[in-house]
Amino acid sequence: MTDEADRNAAHKAAMQTLKAEREALMAGKSDETRGLLVVNTGDGKGKSTAAFGTVARALGWGWKVGVVQYIKGKWITGERQFFAKFPDQLTWATMGEGFTWDTQDRARDVAAAEAAWDRSLAMLADPDINLVLLDELNIALRYDYLDIDKVVEGLMARPWDKHVIITGRNAKPQLIEVADLVTEMTLVKHPFDQGLKAQRGIDF
Amino acid sequence: MTDEADRNAAHKAAMQTLKAEREALMAGKSDETRGLLVVNTGDGKGKSTAAFGTVARALGWGWKVGVVQYIKGKWITGERQFFAKFPDQLTWATMGEGFTWDTQDRARDVAAAEAAWDRSLAMLADPDINLVLLDELNIALRYDYLDIDKVVEGLMARPWDKHVIITGRNAKPQLIEVADLVTEMTLVKHPFDQGLKAQRGIDF
Repeated sequence: MTDEADRNAAHKAAMQTLKAEREALMAGKSDETRGLLVVNTGDGKGKSTAAFGTVARALGWGWKVGVVQYIKGKWITGERQFFAKFPDQLTWATMGEGFTWDTQDRARDVAAAEAAWDRSLAMLADPDINLVLLDELNIALRYDYLDIDKVVEGLMARPWDKHVIITGRNAKPQLIEVADLVTEMTLVKHPFDQGLKAQRGIDF
Repeated sequence: MTDEADRNAAHKAAMQTLKAEREALMAGKSDETRGLLVVNTGDGKGKSTAAFGTVARALGWGWKVGVVQYIKGKWITGERQFFAKFPDQLTWATMGEGFTWDTQDRARDVAAAEAAWDRSLAMLADPDINLVLLDELNIALRYDYLDIDKVVEGLMARPWDKHVIITGRNAKPQLIEVADLVTEMTLVKHPFDQGLKAQRGIDF
């Protein structure tokens, strides 16, 4: 076989193993509360925003929610100020410090992504948390700061009733393959084209 | 001219008038706080959910927000329970009672849509409200429960700094034409295809 065919065969075998393991984990569980793996991707707006809307909805039902922000740095956003009002229901971790385009320091970026992934795994394993949002994880995957196979493995091994939302453009095919719900946000018309800047309250 | 050409010419003239009026309203105002007209459409998920995320963000900045739900009936949703916690910042009006596919009563549907639009106009005119969400307005427009030209006219005449978000599939071309930001949510993969039902906390 060629190298390419080798890789494809190895990937397929690994995926079949992961799927069989997950099916065993789900066996006999109710579809009503089965934990979904949701991916919001595409070049348009609304990927993280829709995820924050789902967080609001989940909090409305009394759920506990964990959020890991992979990219966003320490600047103030409306969503962070808002969700800070729910410390009993919400755990919020902003791990990104601005990535390579700011820092030009790949080793630091990889270390930050690894720390964010460790935090994500802890939330996925936490039995008190119903929903985990991994905001902009796709960006860290796109730049190979994290290994996609390791991430897929961690997601598939999560408890059977844990919901996960992953956002960011350029979702990897391996992630889409194991996701339950994938939505692509497509830009039809954008105010930046008309010379308008990002606006507080609407864009951040 | 043909009837079709007549209609096109009349539409173009009406649009030019509306745009000129709006430009006069905006003259000399800062682009930083210019009120945007945002449309979330498409067959995918996340249209209303992203709008609720924007509502959360706006509340985080201390804004006042008005929400009119055109279609959703009286059933309990996570978002309504959640946002009910902010009576000082948020005015929430659920006007829909389930539309024709439930009621088979077009006159009642039209009356409900008209009442919702009157409520929307009042929110658009309220100087204390920064952001108005017209949830599923596109559905009422699609079934011609409301006249698209009248709605576009009302939107374009709003105060210069008022942000509006309109959701629902099948956004009319006339609406897209005057919008600042249009995003299409496209379904890539959906759990209903795999036999899973809508789930509390994620879907409603």
